[in-house]
Amino acid sequence: MTVKQNTLCYLERGDSYLMLHRVKKQNDANKDKWIGVGGGFEAGESPEDCMKREILEETGFTAKEWRYRGIVTFASDIYPTEYMHLFTVTDWEGEQKVCDEGDLAWIKKEDLLSLPMWEGDKIFLKLLEKDAPFFSLKLCYEGSKLVYHELNGKAE
Amino acid sequence: MTVKQNTLCYLERGDSYLMLHRVKKQNDANKDKWIGVGGGFEAGESPEDCMKREILEETGFTAKEWRYRGIVTFASDIYPTEYMHLFTVTDWEGEQKVCDEGDLAWIKKEDLLSLPMWEGDKIFLKLLEKDAPFFSLKLCYEGSKLVYHELNGKAE
Repeated sequence: MTVKQNTLCYLERGDSYLMLHRVKKQNDANKDKWIGVGGGFEAGESPEDCMKREILEETGFTAKEWRYRGIVTFASDIYPTEYMHLFTVTDWEGEQKVCDEGDLAWIKKEDLLSLPMWEGDKIFLKLLEKDAPFFSLKLCYEGSKLVYHELNGKAE
Repeated sequence: MTVKQNTLCYLERGDSYLMLHRVKKQNDANKDKWIGVGGGFEAGESPEDCMKREILEETGFTAKEWRYRGIVTFASDIYPTEYMHLFTVTDWEGEQKVCDEGDLAWIKKEDLLSLPMWEGDKIFLKLLEKDAPFFSLKLCYEGSKLVYHELNGKAE
């Protein structure tokens, strides 16, 4: 079975997250959307291994303190099923670098939900904001339309 | 990248878990070992979808109450990387059936660690027993020998 596993990481500084505006890659399912940093697992990587490597590659930062917040199952009629491992990161070291995949910007949490993003992303951003315990969120898309979701194995 | 994702589920009744003695399948990486019930994700499944389906298929039970306890990254020099999603299940309904993949037996938790099992399984069984919050455990094997492990992205 073809599956994609990736990490999605929100670096947190005060009332802002470090967001990536995906404007640089062609053929990017996230083209022009704002998302956290992160990317696909490499062989042998744990979720934390992938989180640390992707943050270093995309931002130049070495993660020092983090919380593993949840897993999002992204089921789609056009894309392979994808499992996104969500982290928030509250401490890091190193110098910020220019990202190959888009423009990095610190965005106030209160302004996030008005940016172009996947509809389902707003659900998990709200779960992060209300400090939900580790969650498993299933999002079912038809094309780019969210048609169903479940939290922790139960319809909401 | 070839990855395997599966669920590993411990049905809990008083001081016992429902364990599966894998004696029926040929070419089973778990042959003759005792493990929880569970199996591989199918397309579009969330961890909970897979957990519920596998429990129903292997035991005849419909899971009613559960906790998603952790993820185990199983990195090996001979097998593809595997991600095991761990659940404990405390309520279910239905009648127990005979399992195709092995013999089901209720085993007292205190007797578990003396059964033939993967060395790393003892680490996560202990985490379950001490009621650890959601954890990410990485186990690195050479053949059947556990050579390294990390808890929540940090060496122990």
